[in-house]
Amino acid sequence: MKQETEEQQDFVKEVTKMSDDFDRWYTDVVRKAELADWSGVRGMMVVRPYGWAMWEAITRAFDDMIKESGHENWAFPLLIPREYLMKEAEHIEGFAPEVAWVTRAGSGMEELEEPLAVRPTSETIIGPLIKRYIQSHRDLPKLTNQWNSVVRWEMRSRLFLRSREFWWQEGHTFHASGQEAQDEVTLILGYYRSIAEDWLAIPVLTGRKSPAETFPGAVHTLTVEGLMRDGLALQMGTSHYFGQNFARAYDISFSNKDNERELVYSTSWGTSTRLVGALVMAHGDDSGLIVPPKIAPIQAVVVPIFRDDEGRAKVQRFIESWSPELKAAGIRHRVDWRDERPGDKYAHWELKGVPLRLNVGPRDAEAGQVELVDRLTRAKVAMPISGIAKRLSTELDAFQQKLFARAAAYQRENTFELETLDEVIAHYRERGGFVWVSWCGDQSEEARIKAESGGVTIRTIDDTAKPSGKCFVCGKPAKYRVSLAKAY
Amino acid sequence: MKQETEEQQDFVKEVTKMSDDFDRWYTDVVRKAELADWSGVRGMMVVRPYGWAMWEAITRAFDDMIKESGHENWAFPLLIPREYLMKEAEHIEGFAPEVAWVTRAGSGMEELEEPLAVRPTSETIIGPLIKRYIQSHRDLPKLTNQWNSVVRWEMRSRLFLRSREFWWQEGHTFHASGQEAQDEVTLILGYYRSIAEDWLAIPVLTGRKSPAETFPGAVHTLTVEGLMRDGLALQMGTSHYFGQNFARAYDISFSNKDNERELVYSTSWGTSTRLVGALVMAHGDDSGLIVPPKIAPIQAVVVPIFRDDEGRAKVQRFIESWSPELKAAGIRHRVDWRDERPGDKYAHWELKGVPLRLNVGPRDAEAGQVELVDRLTRAKVAMPISGIAKRLSTELDAFQQKLFARAAAYQRENTFELETLDEVIAHYRERGGFVWVSWCGDQSEEARIKAESGGVTIRTIDDTAKPSGKCFVCGKPAKYRVSLAKAY
Repeated sequence: MKQETEEQQDFVKEVTKMSDDFDRWYTDVVRKAELADWSGVRGMMVVRPYGWAMWEAITRAFDDMIKESGHENWAFPLLIPREYLMKEAEHIEGFAPEVAWVTRAGSGMEELEEPLAVRPTSETIIGPLIKRYIQSHRDLPKLTNQWNSVVRWEMRSRLFLRSREFWWQEGHTFHASGQEAQDEVTLILGYYRSIAEDWLAIPVLTGRKSPAETFPGAVHTLTVEGLMRDGLALQMGTSHYFGQNFARAYDISFSNKDNERELVYSTSWGTSTRLVGALVMAHGDDSGLIVPPKIAPIQAVVVPIFRDDEGRAKVQRFIESWSPELKAAGIRHRVDWRDERPGDKYAHWELKGVPLRLNVGPRDAEAGQVELVDRLTRAKVAMPISGIAKRLSTELDAFQQKLFARAAAYQRENTFELETLDEVIAHYRERGGFVWVSWCGDQSEEARIKAESGGVTIRTIDDTAKPSGKCFVCGKPAKYRVSLAKAY
Repeated sequence: MKQETEEQQDFVKEVTKMSDDFDRWYTDVVRKAELADWSGVRGMMVVRPYGWAMWEAITRAFDDMIKESGHENWAFPLLIPREYLMKEAEHIEGFAPEVAWVTRAGSGMEELEEPLAVRPTSETIIGPLIKRYIQSHRDLPKLTNQWNSVVRWEMRSRLFLRSREFWWQEGHTFHASGQEAQDEVTLILGYYRSIAEDWLAIPVLTGRKSPAETFPGAVHTLTVEGLMRDGLALQMGTSHYFGQNFARAYDISFSNKDNERELVYSTSWGTSTRLVGALVMAHGDDSGLIVPPKIAPIQAVVVPIFRDDEGRAKVQRFIESWSPELKAAGIRHRVDWRDERPGDKYAHWELKGVPLRLNVGPRDAEAGQVELVDRLTRAKVAMPISGIAKRLSTELDAFQQKLFARAAAYQRENTFELETLDEVIAHYRERGGFVWVSWCGDQSEEARIKAESGGVTIRTIDDTAKPSGKCFVCGKPAKYRVSLAKAY
């Protein structure tokens, strides 16, 4: 991945071809399709309405899932005193290098007694706060979540994937037993899989992270990983089991059923606006985005085609006769009356990845039909307007399925099975994708794998699968089936 | 208003009586009803799920309104470079004293080249960003909004009303004419009135702010003002017309229909989590909150009453026979199976202000009925369970109306008409409420009014009403009808 130039804020004239330069294609599409831009504040992005509406669709879906299982949204403070941040040793080691500090405030810009961190994640403020509300096992579990933005002082930047501010949800839960907390982490992983597969139409590998990739302070981290069109993997949500690590650091205990004090068991889990980047990179093509209907801010666009005022009036009357049906059926649609040529409008909405386009000319009006064009296959069919809302709903469902099937086929074609590190190195010299191998589990091998393969890492450990005989690195008996990839 | 002590973080045993000490009552209720607490980070609050759910209900209602009229949500950066903040002179004078500054970041806490403000409001970052997207009149209007939190380094603090971080929406719009921008400001004022009256059941005065109360940098500010149970007014949403002031400071221009460059006309408007404080102070009583059904996280609570296992089983079967109907009808309800005495449960849910309570004992189960208790009137009636969902919906609608009528009566009884400053001073020595007077409009009189009356300010100017003869301060011919109050 090449470094983007934030300063390239000029108008994007042509979208670079994906096959010519994937990274440039990505940035061009994100900007020209009006998803996001760099803000002029170094490393910080502005998310535009078309991109934000996709994030809103994701938030609504996920929020419904977690509320159904008893989670509650809170608002915890943005600023965290330094002493709070410094309590869990591994955690602070992981995050301190990325923290932005508020050190001054007020009319004279007076220096604060103690610097306040702009939250990079909220474990260290939620821990000290939540303990007030936990006395006995009857107060557990506490299932908290918040929607917010966090700041991490990244040196590299890429729209949606790596920026100094990003938007996410962070769940933090507290339990009376380790088993219950582990079940929580697994439950949430299932939600992340559903968001990726059922909503974003991106098939994912799910599994446990290797030691080197585990969240700072966690006992274990579960992850969902998708495959992008350039062959790189993208982490799309992680769910961490902390055991009693954070409870110990922040002294969060409860009186258990035997009336003894016991430290709580905690978890945290998050997914972010990088999911918008994921859908761009998993589904896009040289013409631009392809947006899954369930996430699409505009599911169908109507393009009126006419030569003169009479034609326009005819087409308009026709469209107005059935467009209220679409609205009533909850189909998110727009009629494009802009003063542009039809061909330019087609290109515009293809770039924006709108799943279905309805071309409507005077002859269509006379015939009581529209020309339906599918963004994925580009097939054109005449569709009678009788029962149009139902027909479009069916088409949108089918589109969602086709998009997932296409991404699943891509993932299958780019998933391999290899046996030695040499084979792995040779593979990634030529191409990307996921590679399954067997591994002994020796953490010291992780740095070697990464260094010798030009950046390949263990993406998931599949604890449900049986490894074959030998470790792909050292040849000793293998303990784990693991997937490898180069990743964002 | 007395200063709260943030350090009073101990358990609230008894809620102070409203008539004994309104301020203490307010804090007790907010904390004991589990709406919010101080966070331990000085001046910053934590909003708990019961309070946050009310804010979520408000956000959903308002978000639907603004989207219906074409507004779009964006995400603009949290951090604003100092040079951006410093461009509009009046604005910076208003906000600089309250800004928290990020001055260091990264592993060595390196000093940044330029300090970054944690946004106190976003005019100064949205201006420079939005101008990229505005070339011609065809790009206007730009109707932006964002949901976020902002930081203002307040020295006084009060839960929900005044804290160093609060949550809000901030709308920022850009138009091709002053008239259109002024219409926008009025449109939004109507939405704020609807949120206050139709959702929160709080009647409001609407009008224009006097010069001393106008937003820094604005040409004029419109406001909605509610009356709290202690006789103080609360500003519940403001909508600002900037004319071309911000466009001039940030050089935001467009080519108009005559193909000439012209500065845009802009607005901003916001309402915040203080609305949760408003509903506490407008409706509460000595027993705690009274929450309007449209905002209530729990609209009806079911309290099972039994003496033995047999009674419990009977009551449980009965409740389970109709509670799915409530869920299907979208009535937000909870069955309270906690191991507590019924009387304690009643007090608990009264404190939390749940509109309707359904007591259910074994005899009720046999008779196929519940005992319905209304939080507002405390009237008890037997209600047959046949058609329960429809009946409860009707009761909730009626409750919403009754609550508004009660607040409207309170407002009427506490609104007065006076003629001289001496009368005003004498009035506010004895009591609170709104006082209508006629005013000449001389800005220099505003400081005098405030000083001599112990803090009374002009809350609204009613531009639709005709003033009577003389100014209440100087006796010269009056130009305006204005409302006065002491305010939060």
